[in-house]
Amino acid sequence: MNIGIVGGGQLGRMLAQAGAPLDMRFTFLDPSTQACAAIHGVHLCAEWDDDEAHQALIESSDVLTFEFENVSTMALTQLAEQRPAFPPAKALETARDRGAEKSLFQSLDIAIAPIALIESQDDLDRAVAEIGLPAVLKTRTLGYDGKGQKVLRNAEDVPGSVAELGGVPLIMEGFVDFDHEVSAIAVRGRDGEVRVWPLSRNEHRQGILHRAEPQPDHPLQAKATDYATRVLEALDYVGVMAFEFFVTRDGELLANEIAPRVHNSGHWSIEGATTSQFENHLRAIAGLPLGETTRLVPCAMLNIIGAFPERDAVLSVAGAHLHDYHKAPRPGRKIGHITVLAPDAATLAERTADIEALLVNDLG
Amino acid sequence: MNIGIVGGGQLGRMLAQAGAPLDMRFTFLDPSTQACAAIHGVHLCAEWDDDEAHQALIESSDVLTFEFENVSTMALTQLAEQRPAFPPAKALETARDRGAEKSLFQSLDIAIAPIALIESQDDLDRAVAEIGLPAVLKTRTLGYDGKGQKVLRNAEDVPGSVAELGGVPLIMEGFVDFDHEVSAIAVRGRDGEVRVWPLSRNEHRQGILHRAEPQPDHPLQAKATDYATRVLEALDYVGVMAFEFFVTRDGELLANEIAPRVHNSGHWSIEGATTSQFENHLRAIAGLPLGETTRLVPCAMLNIIGAFPERDAVLSVAGAHLHDYHKAPRPGRKIGHITVLAPDAATLAERTADIEALLVNDLG
Repeated sequence: MNIGIVGGGQLGRMLAQAGAPLDMRFTFLDPSTQACAAIHGVHLCAEWDDDEAHQALIESSDVLTFEFENVSTMALTQLAEQRPAFPPAKALETARDRGAEKSLFQSLDIAIAPIALIESQDDLDRAVAEIGLPAVLKTRTLGYDGKGQKVLRNAEDVPGSVAELGGVPLIMEGFVDFDHEVSAIAVRGRDGEVRVWPLSRNEHRQGILHRAEPQPDHPLQAKATDYATRVLEALDYVGVMAFEFFVTRDGELLANEIAPRVHNSGHWSIEGATTSQFENHLRAIAGLPLGETTRLVPCAMLNIIGAFPERDAVLSVAGAHLHDYHKAPRPGRKIGHITVLAPDAATLAERTADIEALLVNDLG
Repeated sequence: MNIGIVGGGQLGRMLAQAGAPLDMRFTFLDPSTQACAAIHGVHLCAEWDDDEAHQALIESSDVLTFEFENVSTMALTQLAEQRPAFPPAKALETARDRGAEKSLFQSLDIAIAPIALIESQDDLDRAVAEIGLPAVLKTRTLGYDGKGQKVLRNAEDVPGSVAELGGVPLIMEGFVDFDHEVSAIAVRGRDGEVRVWPLSRNEHRQGILHRAEPQPDHPLQAKATDYATRVLEALDYVGVMAFEFFVTRDGELLANEIAPRVHNSGHWSIEGATTSQFENHLRAIAGLPLGETTRLVPCAMLNIIGAFPERDAVLSVAGAHLHDYHKAPRPGRKIGHITVLAPDAATLAERTADIEALLVNDLG
């Protein structure tokens, strides 16, 4: 089976690593000469909308998928006309527009924080009056890892904010006094079967995921699975989708956003789950049966950001698995991750503390 | 880190798959144009003793290792002079000569079946008189998977046997009335640290491994670990070594043979152990700290031999992981394996029975 992937970063790299035992072959389209997935297949080094590269990708692939989601609608349509392409264009389009995403949640009766779509400073002033402060103002498209957003703490932060974020369409989200953040990684097969991994409890630093830990007994698992299933079915989705949620202090689950792809908060599943998010994404798009999503043993994932810790020291921690994405270190850049396995929760806490002490992350 | 591997079969392929997350790069020397590891690195397609290829392998590698053990002593010496090469030549030489191997066991007080070295039919007649029948007559070198051996059931089988096996140096091993066979996969680091995975209980069919299942509570684990450690230390070994043992009906552990490399009976460790035999072999030869060798959950490995089972059906079995080596099916040829994970022993028995029912192995 030949898999074509739009995007050749670490997600493509880990997809290819997961597909290797199944004897899948990979072609990556990525304009970067440094695309770190390239080592695992054929690299078409061209712009995202390059027609010739699209044709080459189509010709070398039985099925297409995306690890980079901001592909133009035209490109998506062109690719999907000539090869099975998953996830579907509609899902990519919904996920990259926070307005469409939140509207989808609302239409499916999925609880979210209060929101308002903002096109002008007037819109924002009205929304602030209705929803109140604090709130977060975000660009509807293209933001990630805390970029393209502004926290409105009090009335002084409001004037000029729309212009400050570039005058593009925005969304204001009312402040959620949450207890913690969780994500659900879910996968839907071509036959409609849905599987969801245990919720991951996530900790961010400066808006970037720092740590993710699967919680097999989280009380909101059933609710999250229900929400995820609604979205996957509404979009007739195929492949892995990530759902980020807030858990409020009174135990309510509020959907925050979706990512139509394998997701950083699911990296623990490579060693920690019966089947990883990467393998199940490939199984889904290839039309193969999905694998079990159970957690094998207590585990946690920690990101390596901006600077690499001492490799020997990391590997000396019992149960530690090191993933080096082969990316040049830059402040704020995800260049690897570590998953730690342990026989029980107490040992896991010790081991992750040992890893935390070794990290030299540079968030920029 | 650049790793040079002599041999480019499925063991090289799985080594490269294990090294990918650690950002290791691979070069394989293998005379076959179909070497199935080639997809995961650079393939030097040349004879085992090709000087130019050796030079290319040396130049592209920081450290050398072997997945094919029958390399000439001259080639070994030449390679090891120019790059760190593990395991050491002495270990490869010992392992490929059943006489040297058994002598090593004896010198280390490791229990074995009664043996005799045979150079002539006279030697054989004497040995049969001393040790008795039944017995197995084996070539001292080059046999594997039941090839190059003859079972001597009674006196009629003895005459002409030495000539029948080619007149080469032989070893006769007294019959062991064993209850089952186990193997210990062990790894020794450059710093001398030794780790051993749980003993695997192995089932062979027509002399070829059919099934391997790790036994974390095997009563002979400590003894096997002790034996393995003696051998590894005696050979100043670095890397993974496999030890095959008989367990007699009265619970004695008898060493049968060693393989100075990652081993088929350790494939379960890819998904079933905290660290796989492949990753730990790489960690060992690269001078990195060794990973934990604990079993994560109940699991078993089944070989795919000669013909491939229906892929969808295999992947439909919960907890099943399919490894397709990308090798052309031929009777008796190992072309893949399946590892099944399960939450408990009863579920594992059900799942492996489901897999067994799907196998269409052709042992030739």
